[in-house]
Amino acid sequence: MSLQSQNSKPLEIFGLKSDLIHPGDDIFLKISAAFQNAGVLPQENDILVIAESALATSENRVVCLSDIEPGAEALEYEKLHQVDAREAELVIRESDVIFGGVFGVLLTLKAGMLCPNAGIDNSNAPDGCVILYPENPTKSAKAIASFILDKFGVRVGVIIADSRTQPLRLGCTGVAIGAAGFHATVDKRGETDLFGRPLTVTRVAVADNLASAAVAVMGESNESTPFALIRNASAVFDPEVSGIITIPPEECMYWGVLQKGKVKPRK
Amino acid sequence: MSLQSQNSKPLEIFGLKSDLIHPGDDIFLKISAAFQNAGVLPQENDILVIAESALATSENRVVCLSDIEPGAEALEYEKLHQVDAREAELVIRESDVIFGGVFGVLLTLKAGMLCPNAGIDNSNAPDGCVILYPENPTKSAKAIASFILDKFGVRVGVIIADSRTQPLRLGCTGVAIGAAGFHATVDKRGETDLFGRPLTVTRVAVADNLASAAVAVMGESNESTPFALIRNASAVFDPEVSGIITIPPEECMYWGVLQKGKVKPRK
Repeated sequence: MSLQSQNSKPLEIFGLKSDLIHPGDDIFLKISAAFQNAGVLPQENDILVIAESALATSENRVVCLSDIEPGAEALEYEKLHQVDAREAELVIRESDVIFGGVFGVLLTLKAGMLCPNAGIDNSNAPDGCVILYPENPTKSAKAIASFILDKFGVRVGVIIADSRTQPLRLGCTGVAIGAAGFHATVDKRGETDLFGRPLTVTRVAVADNLASAAVAVMGESNESTPFALIRNASAVFDPEVSGIITIPPEECMYWGVLQKGKVKPRK
Repeated sequence: MSLQSQNSKPLEIFGLKSDLIHPGDDIFLKISAAFQNAGVLPQENDILVIAESALATSENRVVCLSDIEPGAEALEYEKLHQVDAREAELVIRESDVIFGGVFGVLLTLKAGMLCPNAGIDNSNAPDGCVILYPENPTKSAKAIASFILDKFGVRVGVIIADSRTQPLRLGCTGVAIGAAGFHATVDKRGETDLFGRPLTVTRVAVADNLASAAVAVMGESNESTPFALIRNASAVFDPEVSGIITIPPEECMYWGVLQKGKVKPRK
């Protein structure tokens, strides 16, 4: 395990543009081409960030709504929350829990994460289609890290990034839905504050902070920058480490206050 | 208004270290010294990020708990949620709404933001003391931007940054509680996706993304890096613009699903 400590070099984030990614395109080739176009090469302990919609498209996770037959539950959600019943059907299939909805959106739990519409994306998909979340973002992050090692001979961290709103906040921020090659959260317990006392903030969401940083560079719309490379990040790198640690609702402060009921996953 | 579009230069973030900031210290002097120590000078359209605890300390927002007499409501919170009654008294005084609590924490609304313990911080304060939030983070951000213009002759954006957990997420991420000199959120309505269709993601929380990026550099504990300078950020700069736009609970998706009750501010 190599600890890259905070140093005097600035954190750098390179946006890596790509031409349009079509369903089934080889994501490795798209990443290689993006590096080449940008004139940037990955270095040891860089962190490569991949927009989840680009990854999901390459993984053939594009679904045409005309192919979906909504069931009774989905039709009920359409009536209650004005969500297209076919999309609601996909949300039911893709999520572990549906907490409820507001106009046009169902709030779900997916892979332990709070997630509008199970991560199903209307933007940047072909007409009449939606993009599901990548099948297994962390597995893909590991595969991409392996590819970078094979192709460029360096070990990098990889983040699969989405962006979403947070409660009572205007606008979307980045969030890591998959990670590999570094510790996505760093436990600061045992460390002290400026006065030598134990910290009350105990964990830092390194992957989420870096996902937000990358989203600030990648943009959200037609900017065609589905990848970003982060250099000089203060992270704990380890090629054996992967994944995002999630917490159950009963250990979450917000949940404890806002939602007293039990959460029962469907699956 | 000058729009700095996305360009090929990487985003850069310089951590700016400082010696310990004591109550009443001149924050302008501390910022100047930090620039000097780092050998970095601000440039036009950089964004300077200030840790809220450093700003609050300089603003004399340090309170010794022994000076606080808890009232009946605070004593009740201590019994219910194991929060120090004197700290609970401060949370009552500092917050607009208290939604409830879990072990050791009260969840509040403060200046339109969802905020544990009204932003009151136990870490990095002298023994037996806590640090309240800065009095008016955006006002301070504007003052700091003016100071940078006077001292260095360049217009920069300023973010006052905190870090906190998000629902069902492990670890803290950065959040902007005050801003000046650029648009904290960018409205993407009217823009199109890669296929030319209107975007479903309509707003980007630029200030929050950049606050998270800066927190990734500044650290959380005894790292003594209360300032960060962001260069080449894709932001819409405007010296006349300031503040963080908040949304009322009734316009928030999470609120609509998780909390059906009305929110009545105390003040």
